[in-house]
Amino acid sequence: MSASAGRVLLAYSGGLDTSCILAWLIEQGYEVYAFMADVGQEEDFVAAEKKALAVGAKKFFLADLTREFVTELIYPAVQVNAIYENVYLLGTSLARPVIARGMIAVAEREGCDFVSHGCTGKGNDQVRFELAFYGLKPDIKVVAPWRLPEFYNRFPGRQALLDYAEQKGIPVAQTKAKPWSTDENLFHISYEAGILEDPNTTPPPDMWKLTTAPEDAPQTPERISVEFKAGLPTKVTIPDQNKTITDPVEIFLALNALGRKHGVGRVDIVENRFIGVKSRGCYESPGATILRAAHVDLEGLTLDRNVRALRDQFVTIEFSRILYNGHFFTPEREFITSAIPASQRTVNGLVHLKLYKGNVVIEGRESSEGLYDEQQSSMDELGGFEPTDTSGFIQIESIRIKKWAQANIRKGQAGVEPKDVYGSRV
Amino acid sequence: MSASAGRVLLAYSGGLDTSCILAWLIEQGYEVYAFMADVGQEEDFVAAEKKALAVGAKKFFLADLTREFVTELIYPAVQVNAIYENVYLLGTSLARPVIARGMIAVAEREGCDFVSHGCTGKGNDQVRFELAFYGLKPDIKVVAPWRLPEFYNRFPGRQALLDYAEQKGIPVAQTKAKPWSTDENLFHISYEAGILEDPNTTPPPDMWKLTTAPEDAPQTPERISVEFKAGLPTKVTIPDQNKTITDPVEIFLALNALGRKHGVGRVDIVENRFIGVKSRGCYESPGATILRAAHVDLEGLTLDRNVRALRDQFVTIEFSRILYNGHFFTPEREFITSAIPASQRTVNGLVHLKLYKGNVVIEGRESSEGLYDEQQSSMDELGGFEPTDTSGFIQIESIRIKKWAQANIRKGQAGVEPKDVYGSRV
Amino acid sequence: MSASAGRVLLAYSGGLDTSCILAWLIEQGYEVYAFMADVGQEEDFVAAEKKALAVGAKKFFLADLTREFVTELIYPAVQVNAIYENVYLLGTSLARPVIARGMIAVAEREGCDFVSHGCTGKGNDQVRFELAFYGLKPDIKVVAPWRLPEFYNRFPGRQALLDYAEQKGIPVAQTKAKPWSTDENLFHISYEAGILEDPNTTPPPDMWKLTTAPEDAPQTPERISVEFKAGLPTKVTIPDQNKTITDPVEIFLALNALGRKHGVGRVDIVENRFIGVKSRGCYESPGATILRAAHVDLEGLTLDRNVRALRDQFVTIEFSRILYNGHFFTPEREFITSAIPASQRTVNGLVHLKLYKGNVVIEGRESSEGLYDEQQSSMDELGGFEPTDTSGFIQIESIRIKKWAQANIRKGQAGVEPKDVYGSRV
Amino acid sequence: MSASAGRVLLAYSGGLDTSCILAWLIEQGYEVYAFMADVGQEEDFVAAEKKALAVGAKKFFLADLTREFVTELIYPAVQVNAIYENVYLLGTSLARPVIARGMIAVAEREGCDFVSHGCTGKGNDQVRFELAFYGLKPDIKVVAPWRLPEFYNRFPGRQALLDYAEQKGIPVAQTKAKPWSTDENLFHISYEAGILEDPNTTPPPDMWKLTTAPEDAPQTPERISVEFKAGLPTKVTIPDQNKTITDPVEIFLALNALGRKHGVGRVDIVENRFIGVKSRGCYESPGATILRAAHVDLEGLTLDRNVRALRDQFVTIEFSRILYNGHFFTPEREFITSAIPASQRTVNGLVHLKLYKGNVVIEGRESSEGLYDEQQSSMDELGGFEPTDTSGFIQIESIRIKKWAQANIRKGQAGVEPKDVYGSRV
Repeated sequence: MSASAGRVLLAYSGGLDTSCILAWLIEQGYEVYAFMADVGQEEDFVAAEKKALAVGAKKFFLADLTREFVTELIYPAVQVNAIYENVYLLGTSLARPVIARGMIAVAEREGCDFVSHGCTGKGNDQVRFELAFYGLKPDIKVVAPWRLPEFYNRFPGRQALLDYAEQKGIPVAQTKAKPWSTDENLFHISYEAGILEDPNTTPPPDMWKLTTAPEDAPQTPERISVEFKAGLPTKVTIPDQNKTITDPVEIFLALNALGRKHGVGRVDIVENRFIGVKSRGCYESPGATILRAAHVDLEGLTLDRNVRALRDQFVTIEFSRILYNGHFFTPEREFITSAIPASQRTVNGLVHLKLYKGNVVIEGRESSEGLYDEQQSSMDELGGFEPTDTSGFIQIESIRIKKWAQANIRKGQAGVEPKDVYGSRV
Repeated sequence: MSASAGRVLLAYSGGLDTSCILAWLIEQGYEVYAFMADVGQEEDFVAAEKKALAVGAKKFFLADLTREFVTELIYPAVQVNAIYENVYLLGTSLARPVIARGMIAVAEREGCDFVSHGCTGKGNDQVRFELAFYGLKPDIKVVAPWRLPEFYNRFPGRQALLDYAEQKGIPVAQTKAKPWSTDENLFHISYEAGILEDPNTTPPPDMWKLTTAPEDAPQTPERISVEFKAGLPTKVTIPDQNKTITDPVEIFLALNALGRKHGVGRVDIVENRFIGVKSRGCYESPGATILRAAHVDLEGLTLDRNVRALRDQFVTIEFSRILYNGHFFTPEREFITSAIPASQRTVNGLVHLKLYKGNVVIEGRESSEGLYDEQQSSMDELGGFEPTDTSGFIQIESIRIKKWAQANIRKGQAGVEPKDVYGSRV
Repeated sequence: MSASAGRVLLAYSGGLDTSCILAWLIEQGYEVYAFMADVGQEEDFVAAEKKALAVGAKKFFLADLTREFVTELIYPAVQVNAIYENVYLLGTSLARPVIARGMIAVAEREGCDFVSHGCTGKGNDQVRFELAFYGLKPDIKVVAPWRLPEFYNRFPGRQALLDYAEQKGIPVAQTKAKPWSTDENLFHISYEAGILEDPNTTPPPDMWKLTTAPEDAPQTPERISVEFKAGLPTKVTIPDQNKTITDPVEIFLALNALGRKHGVGRVDIVENRFIGVKSRGCYESPGATILRAAHVDLEGLTLDRNVRALRDQFVTIEFSRILYNGHFFTPEREFITSAIPASQRTVNGLVHLKLYKGNVVIEGRESSEGLYDEQQSSMDELGGFEPTDTSGFIQIESIRIKKWAQANIRKGQAGVEPKDVYGSRV
Repeated sequence: MSASAGRVLLAYSGGLDTSCILAWLIEQGYEVYAFMADVGQEEDFVAAEKKALAVGAKKFFLADLTREFVTELIYPAVQVNAIYENVYLLGTSLARPVIARGMIAVAEREGCDFVSHGCTGKGNDQVRFELAFYGLKPDIKVVAPWRLPEFYNRFPGRQALLDYAEQKGIPVAQTKAKPWSTDENLFHISYEAGILEDPNTTPPPDMWKLTTAPEDAPQTPERISVEFKAGLPTKVTIPDQNKTITDPVEIFLALNALGRKHGVGRVDIVENRFIGVKSRGCYESPGATILRAAHVDLEGLTLDRNVRALRDQFVTIEFSRILYNGHFFTPEREFITSAIPASQRTVNGLVHLKLYKGNVVIEGRESSEGLYDEQQSSMDELGGFEPTDTSGFIQIESIRIKKWAQANIRKGQAGVEPKDVYGSRV
């Protein structure tokens, strides 16, 4: 087949799958450019470039997206306390938009008609990548080999890929494949598939890569403090190391190192993928876990109650869902994030934390915002308002409740609720 | 003044405040009955009864509300994963409705026109108690001395109470008052006021009562499993102790003991009281923390994605707010809890947990509900649906996103978002 | 091709499309049974049956689903005030679940492996039908000809269908096809496609079928009253006709007749289909419009404020979205509808309405629920509570607002908001 | 009593109540300045000034707030389709913030320590005014005579006020007081209290002031068009009058005149006041009703589905509640309105309307935003996407539904839902 199929920019990882896809795309007549994003993962980019070109890529692009990943994706997520299904901090979801944007920028500049990736046909990442592609460049064309019968039928398992690699002269790492898949970036590492697909299998201790096991973490707690301005971390102080860090990226890396040391940030869940399939995933997000705890705490001191409640119920939940489902480059994401600054205007202050064997313990917080008023909240002295005011407040609050209770009594329906739930199981 | 003021049922604690209130109410001409609720707190009820009668109470009532506290309040809260402002598990809030109901039952039976309590005029509990009273018996009258100028002006501080106690012959414990207040029940203990009013003061180690410090907890992890039916815990297995527990109350107590031993369940927050004042509180909820982690996890395996999302956004948040604000005996609580059973129908299964120095680690979970399908979610094999279907799904999902992107491009507004948040601070 | 392709139950309408599909399915080797649902539409079922059998259907089934449509779908929608995107009363969406359930019942009884329908590949109805099929019988197989290239490429336009009809001896109505499509049932009729696809084209006066134009409606208003029990209409009184109606279906039909006469219930919107495409639709829902106005009004008198607010924000919106998107036989619908009864317990009473040239005017309402208290709400007399209580209420409500204002003033940010929106356009 | 009580700025209406309050405040030793806001109501400001000064006000201030009322309050409300409890367009609520801000500006400039108003102790307006005062100037002091026992006990009814007016030489209008209260501004007029307190009393025809009765409105429809930019009305065209209007305030006034003529915008409801009391109110909002219908319609054509859904569920509902409850100068209002611009960026276009006897009929709409695509939504032609994509979409959408259905079938719980609601009443 001639090269007339067009030019494709392939999201390349250096691994077996995308190397085979690279070779296969060439076989299909595409001119292939390889793209790698540096989002903070541990990776031998030099070796990967060499390999891509060896397999047949016409060009290789490495985009360092670390800083924009931190400042455009991670820190807004910190500002909204983003979390999916109560547990997952969205590490993979947050990286996808910057990677997709990096790819589209190269694809446009280099005149690629197609983009391609090695995501499976069952996961979230295919959706996240492709919706991001379309949101940025609606006329881009996508080649997703793992959803093409001519590809997936030809490569029904790892052995078929290995055979093809051998045939194409693709070097394969001699290390045995791990019995799970991972996705790593500056924010986190994820583990899924393989032996983890049994939700009752405890992950083996040697799986975890970014954090020490709590059991093996230091016996001595370590204390740090994190300063926020408008909900963004602006300074981390680590007394034990005599260090103060103010650069956004360095802050995150320092918190990662601390979390790693103290065994902070492991989770293991069964989550619901966008396509409606349940899936088991394990994650390590050391720095993000510390940062979230600190930010949530500071909001207690500095954020108005009603703003917090509305933000939690709408922005936190919707932002997290939008990110998880790959709807980053959409009008609803633009809409939701437009409300973040007004919610963070007062989130200024300092949080003091203790790290110890998996625990992030809040030890104190301070702020000059002035929404907390020691005298006013004091149980031990008057101040701020008259106790008699509360009587009026309670009377007014009880108006509709009394009406309802009177109606219940009149109808003989009072006091029915609640019931012993053990007697009313469905 | 003669006793014509009426009969009042006083929520009595045995402490200095309510003993003085008891005496003061008698002084105002009330006939006073004293009421204590056993909701699992550590308390010398016999001594308290003796003291109440000695101070002048005409009758003393002790209501054992432990079981209904667990089965009517705590377990529904477990079913909805109740939590206030991301951190607080609502231990005090959950006890108030059963106590208020117990009081109203006695008040009605004993012909009391009034109920009274020793809550301060600035806190949540006065609101919770009184709204509950009114929701159960809208014509009840409430005497809240700490909101009556004739009371609070007379007793401006602890010394005034001590003087009054001496004058009235009320015995006062010789132990020095702790520099904070507590509220304890089977679910938790809370600490607030006193030295804790400075949000930057780390609680002293000897404050914590219900849990071992993580630093002092065993070096060896302990493994347990919790079984749920319809979202309710029905069996706890503790292999190390060769124990299996099935009684609802015993389950909770066993989890409390385990959490206590392993340093689980301490939190320290600044929260927003219903009256709009920020307040610092520390809480220990050992068993509840374990149970919540287990229940949240099992829902990952057994609860439909959309039900979970709707339940989280509406029921969890609204139920928690309703409880916190003391709106238990209200139509909105009746409305919200009516949705719980349908959300928990499928939450059946077993969760395996490891407890270690403050950590509750999920090690696995199992269920026969069948909503999780290993083959379908497998990244390593086909199954459940065709990968090509996902292509269609993504195309359809991208329709409106492409339209929006095209409009942006036409208007020259594409790619503007997101921005480095460090450059756009408010 | 032999009949070995299997037995298929076709949702048959008697029109050109489904008659051609019937013939084409036979051509593909299927044994075809035809199914029609009577959901109150004007239709010659006898002629349709004759035609289906003439075209080659082996059996014909007519299911009268009118009553279950009213009592299982329409009335719960009335209870929650269901509405999509502020305007559309969901007439088509509400009929789909009963039709799908009727089909699956026949398919199971008659041993059909397949179900088929004539919905286009761009609309909502295909999704609604098929998700309902799968929710009831997950192993059912669906044949959707308008999404099969071998069908839609063969029949690219109406003429191709006409030619095929002629070839197959399918009788075609001599009346010229209307330049729009309709879907009719007891609840409403919808118009879309054809000339309506230009959103700026005003529908021609002769399009509207179920209602008189307001311009042509009687010059004299007509007064009626509707009684509700638990949010369900239980009696309609029409004084002008000396009629009182109590049967659920008869009530709806009577309101339809009244709405038709008085020009009530036409809407014309651009809506967002589930697949993300915008679409223009016109609808006539005469009886439903009257009923919704009456029910919303009665809730003002009889439903607690907080229940109403929560119900509006969650149940009304989610129920409507679930219905619109065809998610009826799903766990989330089961979950959402489980909250309806508790929200309607107090919605008992009578509403008095005036109908006049498109207007539904509320003239009064009454109830013995007792949540409305004339004396308490009276501006002209004291009662229900002390005016001084309101002072306390306002003081407490202002606590956090004052704190925030003080902080703003200290930071020099007070009074910035709001702005003239004409000066701050995006 | 000497004038040492301080200087008070009184919200003066010229009527009996505030004239008596003015005199009474002087009697209490206050120096009284009178304040009137022109928010578009019909009023003889000259006569009112004369009267205020005659009664004893030291100064009189008239603030023309019409324009800021329209551009800072009304039009943001149009952008979010603000509505309270499905029916009330918030006319009074919207005026309160600008009036309060006007008063505080004068109070600060003129050195007033107090502000005062004539609102009753049972309504919403006292709360709206006072929370606005505190949100703007947290140290302002408020005198609310109708909540002061020394005032309300002295003036238990209208006759007491009349007697006091006579004694103080306050001129009283000879016209008989209407048996209801009103509040009027550019946006609307409200009627409540008096004979309207019986929710079953139909308002007498002569009560309505701002609109012609539909019965008396012209027999001939009138057509107009409204253009929006970023969700704000920027041009109204009235062909019958050969008029085009572009000034924001003039646009609103023109729509008011049109609505008045054609009987548009009357509502009659029982609503829930912030203090928890149910209250009957009638409202006329002619221009606002037209504008809301037009804006809602244009959003169908120009606003993304997901943005619209999120905006409806969160911003519309929360903004409306915030306004109704008088929480305008609060952090939550600042937060919520910060999301409006991003929601309205694409709401650009033209809506064509027909006005006829109470009806606002949408006859068409146009926009160059391009989110609506005739070909893509067309049922009659292919385009925009492949019909086969929808098959994939449906398959993926059905994954979790099928799993749930399979589980139901296995447990014998399939097909239980829904039920005839007439058989399951609470």
